[in-house]
Amino acid sequence: MKKRILSGMRPTGRLHLGHLVGALNNWVGLQDSYECFYMVADWHALMSEYEDPKGLREATYEMVRDFLATGLDPNKSAIFIQSHVPEHLELAMVFSDITPLGWVERCPTYKEQLREIKGRDLTTYGFLGYPILQAADIAVYKANSVPVGVDQIPHLELTREVIRRFNTLYKKNLFPEPEPILTSRPKLLGLDNRKMSKSYANYIALSDTPKEIEKKVGQMITDPARIKLTDKGHPDICNVFTYYTTFAKPEVTAEARQWCEGAKLGCTECKRNFSKIISSYLEPIRTKHEKITNSDIDDILHNGAKKAKSNASKTMQEVRQLIDFVI
Amino acid sequence: MKKRILSGMRPTGRLHLGHLVGALNNWVGLQDSYECFYMVADWHALMSEYEDPKGLREATYEMVRDFLATGLDPNKSAIFIQSHVPEHLELAMVFSDITPLGWVERCPTYKEQLREIKGRDLTTYGFLGYPILQAADIAVYKANSVPVGVDQIPHLELTREVIRRFNTLYKKNLFPEPEPILTSRPKLLGLDNRKMSKSYANYIALSDTPKEIEKKVGQMITDPARIKLTDKGHPDICNVFTYYTTFAKPEVTAEARQWCEGAKLGCTECKRNFSKIISSYLEPIRTKHEKITNSDIDDILHNGAKKAKSNASKTMQEVRQLIDFVI
Repeated sequence: MKKRILSGMRPTGRLHLGHLVGALNNWVGLQDSYECFYMVADWHALMSEYEDPKGLREATYEMVRDFLATGLDPNKSAIFIQSHVPEHLELAMVFSDITPLGWVERCPTYKEQLREIKGRDLTTYGFLGYPILQAADIAVYKANSVPVGVDQIPHLELTREVIRRFNTLYKKNLFPEPEPILTSRPKLLGLDNRKMSKSYANYIALSDTPKEIEKKVGQMITDPARIKLTDKGHPDICNVFTYYTTFAKPEVTAEARQWCEGAKLGCTECKRNFSKIISSYLEPIRTKHEKITNSDIDDILHNGAKKAKSNASKTMQEVRQLIDFVI
Repeated sequence: MKKRILSGMRPTGRLHLGHLVGALNNWVGLQDSYECFYMVADWHALMSEYEDPKGLREATYEMVRDFLATGLDPNKSAIFIQSHVPEHLELAMVFSDITPLGWVERCPTYKEQLREIKGRDLTTYGFLGYPILQAADIAVYKANSVPVGVDQIPHLELTREVIRRFNTLYKKNLFPEPEPILTSRPKLLGLDNRKMSKSYANYIALSDTPKEIEKKVGQMITDPARIKLTDKGHPDICNVFTYYTTFAKPEVTAEARQWCEGAKLGCTECKRNFSKIISSYLEPIRTKHEKITNSDIDDILHNGAKKAKSNASKTMQEVRQLIDFVI
């Protein structure tokens, strides 16, 4: 039997290259070797967007459109909306009852998110429970693995602790302790060399047009020591070059290194070349993206929720027996 | 249109006279003038019983049996199990996201429960959210009123605050602010003059036999100043006399006062008389209790959940629209 994976994203904006390289490409590749559950984490989104949730619905459709355009395949994976499967909240309720308050107060995920998500009042009861809902998301499918970046490994720890506590308390190894599957790609910085993020507006969206891409790549920071065209550049400290290594063919990347180190090409021209590379990389995604209608998405989400629910409700039947609830 | 009521009890033990006088009789009386939703609060029970939940299932059946024996009528009221209607948790999730952490940390309900429920580790994330789930229980039916004792009025305040916050944040008066309906009866003390409670084992259960009742009433504390039979008693400070005023006919109560104040009857004999009164008061409940099978209860709970769910899911559709979720 294939092992299981659960992963998800919060529908709070357009997907960008960071999502593609940091998660989506990885998700696509895992579909053949794992049974995959990929969710739009709307409950998690509401935790940060509750003051003005307008746009969640549209962002959900756009996100699923990007999922599909990138290569997630509804015939292989369950693609669904978290809030369409109430079992996530049921298991989160059980986990909430067995999780000491100190565990969530001290959780690194919680503290990091409090720091990272700006301009919102996140000192709510719900947001404190963020990692517990995350644990339930994973456990309700008895997922064995969770695709994460290196920096997210500590975030899995609370999930594992809560699961151990459940299994011990109710004397049954109902849930496997999920293992991280590391994304191999390096983290992409944004156009301004900060973390690529919606709130910094420093990203290239998957659905950006070639014109938008050319403009954005033009703003990218290159080697700051290379002032004149005749100065030799240092590709290893150039953000654009990192993009080459990620999106261009190896021989093109090698050529770019020569241009730069040999001062054969200026940064402006190099970026113009690169914007064509990234445009044609995104071309098939953009084309597919445009063809997917909301009604296609509704069907896919409906079937995805059905598949997810049939698995999640089996798990909850077992949980209900252990906590002696009337089924 | 009739106004709505929501109330519930945690299935953590047998129902006793305190429940009958403090809540159940009131619930029965409200069935004709209100549309009533009465729930077995199993999620709330798990919050305190998570370390050893064994017995919740049986306690649920016994509690519903007592509900029915006392006069709750499934043709008038929805009688159901909280966890059978996942919309309670969905609305609780929304409320969690909009409720400042300080509100729950400072909530008098929370602090009181922490003090009152002994021998359990209640410093969990779930238990801190107790009053938020309570708010969702009430609001998911748009209940206008909640039957409570005088001492519980402050507990409703957080519900009202959360509802006001929701209505303000999403610019729609979706939920009415529920008003308390006071139970008119005074609070019954236990056999030992402490609060009547399962954990003190100082109660008379609704299903106690006449023999058990006689024994328990025999242990009750009367006027401590009345030492000899010829001493005149003070019924107004006698716990047994409070029981008379609650369960005996007015003329019998008046007679008991005369016996006591006139030193015409000893406390032992007075208690033996009273145990007969309470036995015959409970007789029809006990008889009805014995006739109700688990399969009757399953049917009633099934129909109750259906009725509750059809109302709760309408509310959640409206909530989903306001928080811009995909329905």
